[in-house]
Amino acid sequence: MRTHYCGQLNASLIDQTVTLCGWAHRRRDHGGVIFIDLRDRAGLAQVVCDPDRAEMFALAESVRNEFVLRVTGKVRHRPAGTVNANLASGEIEILCHELEILNPAVTPPFSLDDDNLSENVRLTHRVIDLRRPQMQKNLMLRYRTTMAFRRFLDANGFIDIETPMLTKSTPEGARDYLVPSRVQPGQFFALPQSPQLFKQLLMVAGFDRYYQIVKCFRDEDLRADRQPEFTQVDIETSFMDEQQIMALMEAMIRTVFEETLAVELPNPFPRMSYAEAMQRYGSDKPDLRVTLELVDVTDAVADVAFKVFSGPASSGGRVAALRIPNGASLTRSEIDGYAEFVKIYGAKGLAYIKVNDASKLNEEGLQSPIVKNLHAAALKAIVERTGAQSGDLIFFGADKTKIVNDAIGALRIKLGHEKGYLNGKAWEPLWVVDFPMFEYDEEGKRWNACHHPFTAPKAGHEDFLATDPGRCLAKAYDLALNGSEIGGGSVRIHREEVQSKVFRALGIGAEEARLKFGFLLDALKYGAPPHGGLAFGLDRIVTMMTGAESIRDVIAFPKTQRAQCLLTDAPSPVDEKQLRELHIRLRQKVETQVEVGKS
Amino acid sequence: MRTHYCGQLNASLIDQTVTLCGWAHRRRDHGGVIFIDLRDRAGLAQVVCDPDRAEMFALAESVRNEFVLRVTGKVRHRPAGTVNANLASGEIEILCHELEILNPAVTPPFSLDDDNLSENVRLTHRVIDLRRPQMQKNLMLRYRTTMAFRRFLDANGFIDIETPMLTKSTPEGARDYLVPSRVQPGQFFALPQSPQLFKQLLMVAGFDRYYQIVKCFRDEDLRADRQPEFTQVDIETSFMDEQQIMALMEAMIRTVFEETLAVELPNPFPRMSYAEAMQRYGSDKPDLRVTLELVDVTDAVADVAFKVFSGPASSGGRVAALRIPNGASLTRSEIDGYAEFVKIYGAKGLAYIKVNDASKLNEEGLQSPIVKNLHAAALKAIVERTGAQSGDLIFFGADKTKIVNDAIGALRIKLGHEKGYLNGKAWEPLWVVDFPMFEYDEEGKRWNACHHPFTAPKAGHEDFLATDPGRCLAKAYDLALNGSEIGGGSVRIHREEVQSKVFRALGIGAEEARLKFGFLLDALKYGAPPHGGLAFGLDRIVTMMTGAESIRDVIAFPKTQRAQCLLTDAPSPVDEKQLRELHIRLRQKVETQVEVGKS
Repeated sequence: MRTHYCGQLNASLIDQTVTLCGWAHRRRDHGGVIFIDLRDRAGLAQVVCDPDRAEMFALAESVRNEFVLRVTGKVRHRPAGTVNANLASGEIEILCHELEILNPAVTPPFSLDDDNLSENVRLTHRVIDLRRPQMQKNLMLRYRTTMAFRRFLDANGFIDIETPMLTKSTPEGARDYLVPSRVQPGQFFALPQSPQLFKQLLMVAGFDRYYQIVKCFRDEDLRADRQPEFTQVDIETSFMDEQQIMALMEAMIRTVFEETLAVELPNPFPRMSYAEAMQRYGSDKPDLRVTLELVDVTDAVADVAFKVFSGPASSGGRVAALRIPNGASLTRSEIDGYAEFVKIYGAKGLAYIKVNDASKLNEEGLQSPIVKNLHAAALKAIVERTGAQSGDLIFFGADKTKIVNDAIGALRIKLGHEKGYLNGKAWEPLWVVDFPMFEYDEEGKRWNACHHPFTAPKAGHEDFLATDPGRCLAKAYDLALNGSEIGGGSVRIHREEVQSKVFRALGIGAEEARLKFGFLLDALKYGAPPHGGLAFGLDRIVTMMTGAESIRDVIAFPKTQRAQCLLTDAPSPVDEKQLRELHIRLRQKVETQVEVGKS
Repeated sequence: MRTHYCGQLNASLIDQTVTLCGWAHRRRDHGGVIFIDLRDRAGLAQVVCDPDRAEMFALAESVRNEFVLRVTGKVRHRPAGTVNANLASGEIEILCHELEILNPAVTPPFSLDDDNLSENVRLTHRVIDLRRPQMQKNLMLRYRTTMAFRRFLDANGFIDIETPMLTKSTPEGARDYLVPSRVQPGQFFALPQSPQLFKQLLMVAGFDRYYQIVKCFRDEDLRADRQPEFTQVDIETSFMDEQQIMALMEAMIRTVFEETLAVELPNPFPRMSYAEAMQRYGSDKPDLRVTLELVDVTDAVADVAFKVFSGPASSGGRVAALRIPNGASLTRSEIDGYAEFVKIYGAKGLAYIKVNDASKLNEEGLQSPIVKNLHAAALKAIVERTGAQSGDLIFFGADKTKIVNDAIGALRIKLGHEKGYLNGKAWEPLWVVDFPMFEYDEEGKRWNACHHPFTAPKAGHEDFLATDPGRCLAKAYDLALNGSEIGGGSVRIHREEVQSKVFRALGIGAEEARLKFGFLLDALKYGAPPHGGLAFGLDRIVTMMTGAESIRDVIAFPKTQRAQCLLTDAPSPVDEKQLRELHIRLRQKVETQVEVGKS
């Protein structure tokens, strides 16, 4: 029906007759002439309707915003002085010869130019919201990103193999979405949290290199950057070790950024051990754009009079200092704000020292009520290790290690971005490696897998599985970008006896392992190749690429934080007949409202 | 870890040292030398282990089938007389220098060369089954097919946009898979039967050209070619009419077949109206490879004495003849077999006439007990219209039109393929167009949509919506290939008032329409462009391309006909805690076994 997209028109088409289809983005009447900005997915074009074509002009007068139009006309230069440099088609306009109203439109619920809409309004009227140029750009970029992934993977011999959506519930990890079976009464499918086991089975089956851009599901209470269904770029390969996998995967990310954003990422990506990342940044996905660093002073304050420090320092906790260059200029209320902020992470307070004179390691040079309770050696260590200069400020975290890392790590990010302690780079990728295999669950008195139970132990660490699980490191790697984890993976266990040892370390007995993972253990016995892989969070990567505030801005039809679709009103009640067919009933006394997280 | 895939090796690599990784497909000891056929996804390579490298040889002696190996050696010509022309690498072999057993394997449950395995065994040990070269080829071809679709669609401006998997239940059409909501007690998501409404909304949102290769779900009792989850190549475009859409889509199918199979399909695809297809082939997806045709004789037998014909012919039914050239040679037991066969489709019998002498329209020339009850005009019409020659046989179907079409249409296919009434072409695509909008549901005493309720009526047929729904044709089109429907679609309704008329014709009141489809009706009001699209069944297309017997042979991890995954044992019972969180319980008295179709 058209010859061109609106946004494609330019001066090279002068004097040509074109036909466009699109939406009346704006109509203006000016000097007896009607101007219609016609919009399609490629952009805007200005259509000029002269009154000398009376019938067409009468029709143009009836056009309102969002009418669907078909316009045929001649491309001409805009009059001098009316060129719009912001538009691709800003040099030209179309003198309308024929106008057809393909569909009228009622007045939309909001203007597409309104940038202050509540998310509820946007999601309720998602179809209109998706017309906004930013949303069009976001979803186009998402598409170009997925195609860049596919092209790279295809060129490297990876093949897309679909894995089941209706699969088996394995209640470790996050909560499953369940699907009642009609044919097998009382039984349920689960929607996959990831195709992890299937992709490993595909390696055992000999497909060598697998990928899939695939929906995954987690029924968890939603944070800002989570959705009940999300999309992974899921990858697995055989006969490559972790170094080769990381090298190939970072080449892919570089290619994707180059092709979609024309951004050149570093080559190679830097790598850092988990231990170092926690030590220096309090995070396993440090934002390297922020120049501030945590400095450990635990050993130096183990015996000071100040119990807030010596308590944790002498009982397995951590005391970390965060030097803020020129931070002495922070106001009292700013500092109070940060002290409030760290409480979110469980910190009980936020001690600090203003460095008035770095050469005087006493209450004269170091301004803080805590200084008198720190001995000279401690003060010396603090100033030396942080490299504090006169005019700086030093924040402290002192608590259990996890609380210190979470709180001071988060403070580092917040303060770094708010106050501009940044290295000026737009993109800072980082591989974090040498993760521990297990973390201890104090409540459950058991070891949990840090990554997942199919991750291989680091070479030489296999014996720790039985003797000292806490010391056992994993062949796992996460890719952090600007402080977000955008991907993660590992080399997997390919020998059945190692997999059984890991299950034992996790307290999963032989019988339970057979029941839940029998098909995996069998597969490992039938000739499993060495293999490993990775999954990237597509929604998050595209969110970062577009600079969107929320992953909901890069998903066409997202759910709210209460996991609802405001557009279609899902979930919704269903017929009793449907439930009967599925052999389930609602619980007798269903409260009509429950708080998220309490159910 | 490797330098080449096994199947890539050829004589151009003579004297080069290569490293291969793969599985020991077969080990033979011959003349003091060990031969290992090493297998990877690209094929086989013959590895020769000489006893002069003692350590390596000892290792090679321990190798059993399906061990995972890494082999380094030198490529050399096979000795004269041992070249294997069936293998890509059949001219060469690798003289093994180094051998590493990456993983041993227990004896597999069956030999990969065994072609007589039950499907249950194959699906239970799917990982081993997937190693079979045919399954590797099938899934590779599936991948290449999807990539060919993507490339074509990408080149034509279509963009892949993901639509939700957790969506709203709309109980018309097939049965939904339901997903209980944890956050909204008593409410349910449904897994999509297709992204139909979402893709229409994307058109209203202005994305112009959409595609998605996407999982869809139907909880129906399974036939041989159905799966609970199946994959659609789902497409929608704005501002194109049905002619343009069909032209583009058939170009896509041609391109896909050309790129993946090097097959040249006709250009253009032939088109046939639904009415003609039913008349001539008794099917809306006729297999044009079969040269037999149904011939209508209803009018000619309305008043014959033979009640089996005159009954249906005089009361709105159909009497159709199927001429079988040289069919007089069919044996009595063959004919009895066909008579049994048509009963599947509801036919009560299978009348026939043997044409002994086509010039004698009486019991002498036409051999059949029914001839004496057919008058001369009827016999003349039968012989003339079918073009029967001496030595032919004519089968008859006489019943309600649907039964005749189903039964004689199926007989046409079966007999055509069994007895070779074929035109010799490998691929016969056909567009079937001008479908009726509605079919009358005798039980429910109401009109149902033939395609779906969002299909636009044919130009000029809009008034029939209110006056005579049965006469109303649709802007719908199906693509049949060799007698299978591989795709179907339509131009959609883009005006709210037309959509409302269709809902009325379907007996869906304004209130119900608003409740179920309010978001669609709203979208149509806010400036919906003319749009239409299509969905192709990927599983079925790839099944046909590979010549597989079942779509389960082109799906990595399919379900059985009882919708179970024998590999992972899904569905399975879940914890009571999980059900409690979802506000559901099992029905008190769940029978442990119900028949499919009875629940």
